Amino acid sequence: MIPSCLRWTGDAAGRLEILDQTLLPGRLAWVACADVDTVVEAIKSLRVRGAPAIGIAGGYGLVVAAGEAMRENLPPDAARAHVLARGEQLATARPTAVNLRWAVERCVAVLDSLPASASSAILAATLLAEARAIHEEDRRLCAAIGRHGARLLPDGGVLTHCNTGALATGGDGTALAVITTAWAEGRKLEVFADETRPLFQGARLTAWELVERGIPVTVLVDAAAGHLLATGRIQACIVGADRITARGDVANKIGTYALAVLAAAHAVPFYVAAPSSTFDLALDDGADIPIEERAADEVLAPLGVRAAPAGARAFNPAFDVTPARLIRGIVTERGVIAPVNPETILAVLRSQT
Amino acid sequence: MIPSCLRWTGDAAGRLEILDQTLLPGRLAWVACADVDTVVEAIKSLRVRGAPAIGIAGGYGLVVAAGEAMRENLPPDAARAHVLARGEQLATARPTAVNLRWAVERCVAVLDSLPASASSAILAATLLAEARAIHEEDRRLCAAIGRHGARLLPDGGVLTHCNTGALATGGDGTALAVITTAWAEGRKLEVFADETRPLFQGARLTAWELVERGIPVTVLVDAAAGHLLATGRIQACIVGADRITARGDVANKIGTYALAVLAAAHAVPFYVAAPSSTFDLALDDGADIPIEERAADEVLAPLGVRAAPAGARAFNPAFDVTPARLIRGIVTERGVIAPVNPETILAVLRSQT
Repeated sequence: MIPSCLRWTGDAAGRLEILDQTLLPGRLAWVACADVDTVVEAIKSLRVRGAPAIGIAGGYGLVVAAGEAMRENLPPDAARAHVLARGEQLATARPTAVNLRWAVERCVAVLDSLPASASSAILAATLLAEARAIHEEDRRLCAAIGRHGARLLPDGGVLTHCNTGALATGGDGTALAVITTAWAEGRKLEVFADETRPLFQGARLTAWELVERGIPVTVLVDAAAGHLLATGRIQACIVGADRITARGDVANKIGTYALAVLAAAHAVPFYVAAPSSTFDLALDDGADIPIEERAADEVLAPLGVRAAPAGARAFNPAFDVTPARLIRGIVTERGVIAPVNPETILAVLRSQT
Repeated sequence: MIPSCLRWTGDAAGRLEILDQTLLPGRLAWVACADVDTVVEAIKSLRVRGAPAIGIAGGYGLVVAAGEAMRENLPPDAARAHVLARGEQLATARPTAVNLRWAVERCVAVLDSLPASASSAILAATLLAEARAIHEEDRRLCAAIGRHGARLLPDGGVLTHCNTGALATGGDGTALAVITTAWAEGRKLEVFADETRPLFQGARLTAWELVERGIPVTVLVDAAAGHLLATGRIQACIVGADRITARGDVANKIGTYALAVLAAAHAVPFYVAAPSSTFDLALDDGADIPIEERAADEVLAPLGVRAAPAGARAFNPAFDVTPARLIRGIVTERGVIAPVNPETILAVLRSQT
């Protein structure tokens, strides 16, 4: 049984709990978020990660912010200003995934419909309703993505990168939902998961989700993906996304770009699965997506064990950009975008679900 | 100061000591090899690794075998049979690198010049001379490889994979000797080292050798190499080899093939550096090279820390094969083979050094 990666219990004065994914699969422990700083820390430290999930965390984070205003008895104008400032702090906790800012801005926007005299309690209740709506919507988006994407996967080997399952979303996932839906529909899949250095989300999280679902999974080091593709055992690759531009360039976990180049070299279709909130139509060229650089120790001390000698430096971008030309199709809750170009993207995003 | 990765002390009744590279860079410890089983275990467990180095270990391993015959007072025919049987055990300790069998067979061949009545002490002394010759030759081969290869590297970024330095050879290395020689000649290099999962030879060993030499080094996860190449910061890639076929297909550490595909996608030259003993002219197609599959825990429990859940399987090939078409040149002690094809390979291998 895979738990939800975050949960709100109680009413607007209730609390946000985040499953600490840095401890998985060894331990199931929850971080109780009494204040926004705790939420921000959980996002920055990847206790909660995955573009849709950090969006949801951002939404609930605003409710926590309104709760802070309630506890401090802030008057309406100060309460609203506090929530907005905390919203900016949440939105910038990680720079690459666009869903985080998208969710925060969507929640903040609902405050505009409230009178200036609305108390912090009213703000909290209103924000909670919107955060819950985003959470619930994401659950349904995941199901739709799984349904649309499942028909793309033939019998045979499927390779994925990082974690894009229940732990990364409010539902069953994006790319991983495509795999588990195809499996549930009876497709004969052999699932391979890149371990996904530096933080091993593939080995720790994707493998765990699949084992929990009773789906056999084979983990490989990222560097073995080229050889695996060369053996002919992989019929499709599918990954998630943290941001997608208007022309279909995709920012996703470091290693995605290399995998897409290798898939193309072996004529294996490479798919991306993500909700439409992942699109940033203000950007065209993927080179304009900000790429987060993370701490050197993630590389030099894997799982906390020092590997490299003192004096070695590290290059540690958390994401890379895969150009649209390497992507056979993008699976969204509104359908599959294929081929990938500005026109097909707009056509699918503007269609009704 | 980088120690030799293995050493023989004393005469034919002396002893082989192997630097335990599984403990580097944290600890410098030597395994005293009182018997052949210990040598074989050291090779299988990668306490000594690197194609040239395990060849040298195989040579000294035969001296250890003759020492066993001496201690057991075996008569000449039994002593020789014992050495041959132990030679087969050594030669098959790891399947992919051809240098191991090459060195064992070269040492065994010198026994043919001895009379059938030669005692175990004579066998040991003869084998020690040949093993020492292989060791000393390798030191000179490394220097020649470094010299020939250095002129291929322009100023700028150079990316390497796994460890191909003093810890992998009897001298200063193969691919890493090319880098350190170019550096010593004043080339303005920025050296990048893939960490090289599953056993982190890049992060642990290559980074250590470079830090010890005062050469700045930046470590990256293997999956980041594609992104690094896309940034334009890499002007050349250079790696070692465990076996090279007659047409120039190269078996090397897992991840090499993926790196070669990525280098080609960015028009960055990809070089291989290896002594001529790495060539196996009996094979043409790289697909015929036996690829060693190693234990699942190397993938599932990095550095001994469990990452994946119980129930996950692993795909753990230790090597992959890079086709000749992706290789700009092969640096040997006899010169640079470029372009890489059966004719240029034979021409360089047949030339005088």
